[in-house]
Amino acid sequence: MRIYDWHTGPYPARVRIALGELGLQSRVKFVPVDLRRGAHKTPAFLAINYSGTLPVLELDDGTRIAECTAITQYLDALNGDPLLTGATPRDKGVIHMMTKRAEIELLDAISVYFHHATPGLGADVEIYQNPEWGFRQRDKAVRGMSYFDGVLQQQAFIAGEAFSMADIAVIGGLIFAELVDLPIPLKCSALSAWYTRMQERPSVRDRISISRSATTQPFE
Amino acid sequence: MRIYDWHTGPYPARVRIALGELGLQSRVKFVPVDLRRGAHKTPAFLAINYSGTLPVLELDDGTRIAECTAITQYLDALNGDPLLTGATPRDKGVIHMMTKRAEIELLDAISVYFHHATPGLGADVEIYQNPEWGFRQRDKAVRGMSYFDGVLQQQAFIAGEAFSMADIAVIGGLIFAELVDLPIPLKCSALSAWYTRMQERPSVRDRISISRSATTQPFE
Repeated sequence: MRIYDWHTGPYPARVRIALGELGLQSRVKFVPVDLRRGAHKTPAFLAINYSGTLPVLELDDGTRIAECTAITQYLDALNGDPLLTGATPRDKGVIHMMTKRAEIELLDAISVYFHHATPGLGADVEIYQNPEWGFRQRDKAVRGMSYFDGVLQQQAFIAGEAFSMADIAVIGGLIFAELVDLPIPLKCSALSAWYTRMQERPSVRDRISISRSATTQPFE
Repeated sequence: MRIYDWHTGPYPARVRIALGELGLQSRVKFVPVDLRRGAHKTPAFLAINYSGTLPVLELDDGTRIAECTAITQYLDALNGDPLLTGATPRDKGVIHMMTKRAEIELLDAISVYFHHATPGLGADVEIYQNPEWGFRQRDKAVRGMSYFDGVLQQQAFIAGEAFSMADIAVIGGLIFAELVDLPIPLKCSALSAWYTRMQERPSVRDRISISRSATTQPFE
């Protein structure tokens, strides 16, 4: 398998954490796509992924799977015993819901803020910006942190009592939040405590460490 | 099971089509949430779904599952033999990718257009609008139709050679497109032919017919 990604990107981090959790790193070859130069918006890359986003998984038969949730769903189904996407219908449903919620209320909102209300990837890549929309999405993301704090006051993980794809999506959101200087509000102590616990997992600790080494220039 | 929804909504249509395909309609009681009056944005409903969107599935044990993809994933897993979300890892991955792509490039884009660059659900519900963003999303949706037309020039269904959740997501997008007077471009003949074929399925025909009866006032 090959994965087109960029090693410090918050979305690529989601799939790299999933690979770590599933012990599949050695089966993947990574192909770097330089976000900083907008390589993910070139016609060559848009032919690989119409939406122009990273990461993309390419199977040995040439099939390409974009979107973190879809890639994680593929990887987690490989050995027939899902660890990240739920074993029962109820768990599958709740994990997919909370993963999507992590995107809508946190990760994607921060991404819009970054690309629309900050210099983002620079003028050559950010050819259209809507700062008003970006700032609203920033505020939404901060509210999202409070929401997930409330979830974690009630349960140990984002989708219940076990680590899942939904935790990984919130981790992706917090990695992005750190890159854009959007700290977890002090009052969100359950979210902070959970994030500290998550970093005890090698798959998570490694990604956060690589991301932090790049905070002065988000995608260096 | 109970489903909170509104009978003419394009997102609720996705789950109602899935129920029809799976033959599960008789196991569900529908609870109407009046979109036209903004009932989905009240504190009472936000306690049911933080994101304030329809539909939401409520299981007999009280578990609530929001987000069409998550609900469909739950329903499709119930009898252990998935019809809509893929049987193999590859199919699961591709179907989830194309479902998400249908949302990003078509359905969600039209929703943003509707809520930000048209009167939407009216001034009482649309308390913030960003028309510039809305019109950009409209243009993105039209490009999305051309993209899916290209997909359907190559294969019979959105995610390959079988009907799936991804077809349902594009159908949801085209139901919404019709509500906001955004026709399929004439040159998109493969997309139009596929949409005609889809309407041979009773689950789809019924939803489109109910939606069309409401075109003068989208959510009546």
